[in-house]
Amino acid sequence: MLSRIFGTESEGAPGDGHEQIVLCHDRHSGLKAVIAIHSTALGPALGGTRFYPYASEEEAVQDALNLSRGMSYKNALAGLDHGGGKAVIIGDPNEIKTEALLRAYGRFVQSLHGRYITACDVGTYVADMDVIARECDWVTGRSPEQGGAGDSSVLTAYGVFQGMRASAQHRWGAPTLRGRRVGVAGVGKVGHHLVQHLVEDGATVLITDLNEASIARVRAAHPQVEVVADADALIRADLDVYAPCALGGALDDTTVPALTASVVCGAANNQLAHPGVEKDLADRGILYAPDYVVNAGGVIQVADEINGFSFERARTKASKIFDTTLEIFALATSDGVPPAVAADRLAERRMSEVGRLRTILLPDSHRG
Amino acid sequence: MLSRIFGTESEGAPGDGHEQIVLCHDRHSGLKAVIAIHSTALGPALGGTRFYPYASEEEAVQDALNLSRGMSYKNALAGLDHGGGKAVIIGDPNEIKTEALLRAYGRFVQSLHGRYITACDVGTYVADMDVIARECDWVTGRSPEQGGAGDSSVLTAYGVFQGMRASAQHRWGAPTLRGRRVGVAGVGKVGHHLVQHLVEDGATVLITDLNEASIARVRAAHPQVEVVADADALIRADLDVYAPCALGGALDDTTVPALTASVVCGAANNQLAHPGVEKDLADRGILYAPDYVVNAGGVIQVADEINGFSFERARTKASKIFDTTLEIFALATSDGVPPAVAADRLAERRMSEVGRLRTILLPDSHRG
Repeated sequence: MLSRIFGTESEGAPGDGHEQIVLCHDRHSGLKAVIAIHSTALGPALGGTRFYPYASEEEAVQDALNLSRGMSYKNALAGLDHGGGKAVIIGDPNEIKTEALLRAYGRFVQSLHGRYITACDVGTYVADMDVIARECDWVTGRSPEQGGAGDSSVLTAYGVFQGMRASAQHRWGAPTLRGRRVGVAGVGKVGHHLVQHLVEDGATVLITDLNEASIARVRAAHPQVEVVADADALIRADLDVYAPCALGGALDDTTVPALTASVVCGAANNQLAHPGVEKDLADRGILYAPDYVVNAGGVIQVADEINGFSFERARTKASKIFDTTLEIFALATSDGVPPAVAADRLAERRMSEVGRLRTILLPDSHRG
Repeated sequence: MLSRIFGTESEGAPGDGHEQIVLCHDRHSGLKAVIAIHSTALGPALGGTRFYPYASEEEAVQDALNLSRGMSYKNALAGLDHGGGKAVIIGDPNEIKTEALLRAYGRFVQSLHGRYITACDVGTYVADMDVIARECDWVTGRSPEQGGAGDSSVLTAYGVFQGMRASAQHRWGAPTLRGRRVGVAGVGKVGHHLVQHLVEDGATVLITDLNEASIARVRAAHPQVEVVADADALIRADLDVYAPCALGGALDDTTVPALTASVVCGAANNQLAHPGVEKDLADRGILYAPDYVVNAGGVIQVADEINGFSFERARTKASKIFDTTLEIFALATSDGVPPAVAADRLAERRMSEVGRLRTILLPDSHRG
């Protein structure tokens, strides 16, 4: 496992290896946490804290490694001055999450003095960030009353919508979903905001969700939205755009051949179930907007907290997801690779080219 | 392995578990390091950096865990305001030690902002600490020209001598080695200073060393010293005191039954080859001065650097090893346990009793 952390000497790509892994333990509160800093090439590592009952501590470390690497790429293409990091707390949050444990965790994050900045993730919420912030200066995703950005799903949905507009521009020549049939799988926190944007833009929207209450909320606001039985049925429905907004792994060897849509663009993380799916999509002529590019609105929102949150400024930054998505499609065409590969290349290029700027000395600068 | 790091919930002794493990990686310089912080109960973790070609990264982590735990106990009984930490750099120092690697390491130590303070250990030297200090405020063992304490073997030997005086007091009723026969196994950096103290105190000194040059240096200064063929012969020679000052594991199932000395007190680390040897010594009526108690002069010396080095102040602190050793012998007698067990108890008591003082709030204090 450790050889995976450190990587090998022969590896060359900027995405390989991790800079720092911090294992944190506080016996009294029961805290066992792993903070993974994949890269600080672009600035302090930013990424959420996942609180999850991992089956083993090795599994927790592995998840922190994978997630922090993903954040390096997401933050790079979001145009942020942040590297990639992620933390995991081991245990069932419903059983062990206490003020003491969260604050103990906050002290460990504080001990890194800003090399890692945290945020919400699975199992942690705005209220938890407020508690962590009582011990720590490096917390985003706090409540608005505490100077925080609050619910980051608003700009996540907005960013996905911008990515979808860019996909429409690339595929059909106009940056609008007007008259298109868009299927949204998952209308929870992010999906229901996305439906709002799509309806306003003049799209025909089909939705599905395991949760009846989520469906009812969307239907109450937008009676014209069609409800489909499940994700499987939605994939096979007559669609122009498919938007996975629920669990990861939505695109696999079963779903890709069944897709009727010619664009895939959604909010879910890790939509590609395994390497190679990006090529299957390209081979079928389906335009795939890379997940981590279009769902970066949330991290853009919380990153804005660090210097005092401005929703308008954050929204302006998130609207750039439109341009970045177009740039990736253009690079994919010119390099003859799927957009997911083009996105990785663009992220690695920024980490390498902008990351080396720190070698230009600025004496006595706070820029490090 | 990770379960060993975090420990289990049921473990109760203050020595179990570690607070924090930091894995550090810098591809360009080839740095792969593990910083283990066992405890900060008494203050910033202090301990050296070992540079060693570990067979595996797991082995490196294990060594850092064991060594950092040992430093918690040593620093606690040395009366320092320091917890225990230790770092290891993976690789052969003769092959990969460069300015860039040492400075990259320094930046990682700096990123912990004083939770860990480093020093020399196997494979790192005063000159290396000067290089690390160019990137880092938390380095001891630097050269005198850089504000450092320089060679810490001077006070290590002085502390061992104080421990031996306390052993003589406990065994024979007077704090002197005058007229005693003392065997010193290993007369390198520390051992030859120890011989000087013993000769001045009026002891008859027998020595052995694998290195002819080390022997010759001692003989040149003190022609009256007797040279013995090897450690095995020294153990069997007619001795009052045996002082292991070379490699660890000097006291094992073969050497303990062969010992003629009634006191063992030396500078070597980890003299007890395995748990249980402390009991074998007690059963034979041999008074054992715990290694980490009597060899703490070195860490006392480098700890003094942190607020501006004063050799006199450091020597005064190191002379307290006399009192601490007596206190341990007294506790061993009253608790009916070997001195090694009494030392651990005393260390754990200080970590627990002094460690909890931080719960008394000092608002706006630098004391943390």
